[in-house]
Amino acid sequence: MDVISVIRTKRDRGELTPDQIDWVIDAYTRGEVAHEQMSSLAMAIFLNGMNRTEIARWTAAMIASGERMDFSSLPRPTADKHSTGGVGDKITLPLAPLVAACGAAVPQLSGRGLGHTGGTLDKLESIPGWRAQLSNDEMLAVLRDVGSVICAAGDGLAPADKKLYALRDVTGTVESIPLIASSIMSKKIAEGTGSLVLDVKVGSGAFMKNIDDARELASTMVGLGSDHGVKTVALLTDMATPLGLTAGNALEVRESVEVLDGGGPQDVIDLTLALAREMLDAAGLKDADPAKALADGSAMDHWRRMITAQGGDPDAALPVARETHIVTAPSTGVLQTLDAYAVGLAAWRLGAGRARKEDPVQAGAGIELHAKPGDAVTAGQPLLTLHTDTPEKFDYALAALEGGVEIGAADAGFTASPVVLERIG
Amino acid sequence: MDVISVIRTKRDRGELTPDQIDWVIDAYTRGEVAHEQMSSLAMAIFLNGMNRTEIARWTAAMIASGERMDFSSLPRPTADKHSTGGVGDKITLPLAPLVAACGAAVPQLSGRGLGHTGGTLDKLESIPGWRAQLSNDEMLAVLRDVGSVICAAGDGLAPADKKLYALRDVTGTVESIPLIASSIMSKKIAEGTGSLVLDVKVGSGAFMKNIDDARELASTMVGLGSDHGVKTVALLTDMATPLGLTAGNALEVRESVEVLDGGGPQDVIDLTLALAREMLDAAGLKDADPAKALADGSAMDHWRRMITAQGGDPDAALPVARETHIVTAPSTGVLQTLDAYAVGLAAWRLGAGRARKEDPVQAGAGIELHAKPGDAVTAGQPLLTLHTDTPEKFDYALAALEGGVEIGAADAGFTASPVVLERIG
Repeated sequence: MDVISVIRTKRDRGELTPDQIDWVIDAYTRGEVAHEQMSSLAMAIFLNGMNRTEIARWTAAMIASGERMDFSSLPRPTADKHSTGGVGDKITLPLAPLVAACGAAVPQLSGRGLGHTGGTLDKLESIPGWRAQLSNDEMLAVLRDVGSVICAAGDGLAPADKKLYALRDVTGTVESIPLIASSIMSKKIAEGTGSLVLDVKVGSGAFMKNIDDARELASTMVGLGSDHGVKTVALLTDMATPLGLTAGNALEVRESVEVLDGGGPQDVIDLTLALAREMLDAAGLKDADPAKALADGSAMDHWRRMITAQGGDPDAALPVARETHIVTAPSTGVLQTLDAYAVGLAAWRLGAGRARKEDPVQAGAGIELHAKPGDAVTAGQPLLTLHTDTPEKFDYALAALEGGVEIGAADAGFTASPVVLERIG
Repeated sequence: MDVISVIRTKRDRGELTPDQIDWVIDAYTRGEVAHEQMSSLAMAIFLNGMNRTEIARWTAAMIASGERMDFSSLPRPTADKHSTGGVGDKITLPLAPLVAACGAAVPQLSGRGLGHTGGTLDKLESIPGWRAQLSNDEMLAVLRDVGSVICAAGDGLAPADKKLYALRDVTGTVESIPLIASSIMSKKIAEGTGSLVLDVKVGSGAFMKNIDDARELASTMVGLGSDHGVKTVALLTDMATPLGLTAGNALEVRESVEVLDGGGPQDVIDLTLALAREMLDAAGLKDADPAKALADGSAMDHWRRMITAQGGDPDAALPVARETHIVTAPSTGVLQTLDAYAVGLAAWRLGAGRARKEDPVQAGAGIELHAKPGDAVTAGQPLLTLHTDTPEKFDYALAALEGGVEIGAADAGFTASPVVLERIG
């Protein structure tokens, strides 16, 4: 087998054979295929696509590149959730302990933010003492004791994907449905969860900008999960505007705790409950009542135990940014648009995200929203509060918001978009 | 400027701006843009193309990456020739001294073979003592004393192209008209020739398999040359069957000397004279008579002086392969096909070419043809003689010839293809 013939096959719009796929993934993992060869192939895949048969084999080869975890020793059914990434998407934080409180085990392997979308691990690391890196044994112990764990994937899980993901990030080959679907599903299947709910974001703040692409991505992933015996469901959810009223690390932890405490923004509550119900259904726990677990404090109890088990102090004060800047409404009327991408990019520029994988993030940086689309606003009222430790970045962040805020006439009306747009599975 | 935005522009079918092109070529030459980023961009260019404006800028940026040579101190007009590569294409060997004998200066920077096509430098290195590497001063001295020189390009000439060519070779991005045209023309323009004749090969043994692609490549290169003040003409020539009766290094030197000695196969003589006339015309020497220079021994005299000036012994015996194997005609009739690619691949497998740039070639390896398409053949007569130092490769070479030889009925007729198919310029 030689790599140039594999590249030429896809370059010339052919179908990659199972042997070609198995060989190229294995050879790339071992370093026999060079980065510049894999990136050339990735661009050919980006532009010429892969069919379902090829995607299934590509995913299987990435799973086979590393270890598979096994949660069959747990007394509870496992359920996991994956979001394709959005702005203000802190849902994993209240969701994992909530679903654990309802009787499932939630082995939530999460990632860090890159670009304008935040990362769950970055958010949790704003809690003093909390550790993202657990050994497989530690992870299993937290799952057994608490019922949910949120941690980084170990190096042994789908190493081919780890290498390819880093490569795609620097070679302009990220936004490809076959490559996104196989990347997500190889990790989730190798992780060994029994069921999986996918939160596929659609809109300006998501990788999928339109519903057709999101639908294609979702159905591809649902198919891959089912083929590997993982009960998989996808919700297509709105990412035209940020979720909740915060985007940033400690700011989102605070809001998540508010939801666990029975408060918080309605859209965060609604999406958390919708995803919890799907996870519990998929895990066979159809009688569980997540709204009750949120109301009676059992979800909060699980959160506190989960944070504590990973070295964090759930009662510690969260970090606060050194400087704030308030953006006010330029006119009176109805807020029509608060663009998710603009807010995400501005939060990233304030220090909530990183430009390169090795960069640190600011725990306190980010944006608070004081109004959501559909709300009536008055000229001069606070619309956003920007938080940062590096106030020299305020202008750079404000530039990202240009055109991202639109206020219509008071009588212009407003059509709200539902949080969940579609269900596939 | 960042490389991902450049890659995304081309990936998404946009036009690269002059600034993007200048930056990416310079940054790649300096190592700031990584190989895996450039190969991703090269695949995007391969699949989405570049327009004439982009190709012109890309070529100019590659020229600007290194030095430019200057032959204006020479008392003669300069003329160069470039072939896009074929099987048995030894034309440079008789052509350069022939054109020098007619009054032009021929600064022939040549390459080595890769894949099934041979390289001029590999062929000349089968002459004992001959050196391909000359300093710029040595090159100028041979040009001044003899009138022609055939040598390797120095490292200072279009280093961006050198780096990109090596990258394309291992990433499946070779056969792209914009990338081929800019690669060839950046070197030729930086070399400083006043006029240039392009021999664009068409057929199974060439990179361009059909006449439309060859025409597009030729007109792109003619345009680039003219834009940079180099008088440029292209001949589209047939490469369905090998040129002459030999493919291999020392075998082709022997045939070239036969042509300089007034003999040799008719197709080699015809193409050598056609290209010589174009070069002399382009150099403004319209009264020169290359047929006379071939007949009266002055071309041979220039050959001997040129080889001697570069350390070679024109009288030394050429290397001969240790083993031969004869392929006979399986039936009686008219030879309809002797496929250039099949013969080139077989010669390569016998040791005439290299798999990787760092591999050596066998001086004596290759194939002699005892018949050409259109010739009557008798069952059992010798058709080909295979030469190699590694006889264990005979079977591997014979496999390459499968299907490459077709003999029709004795009365089947045969339509000969002219050597020169078209002229563009």
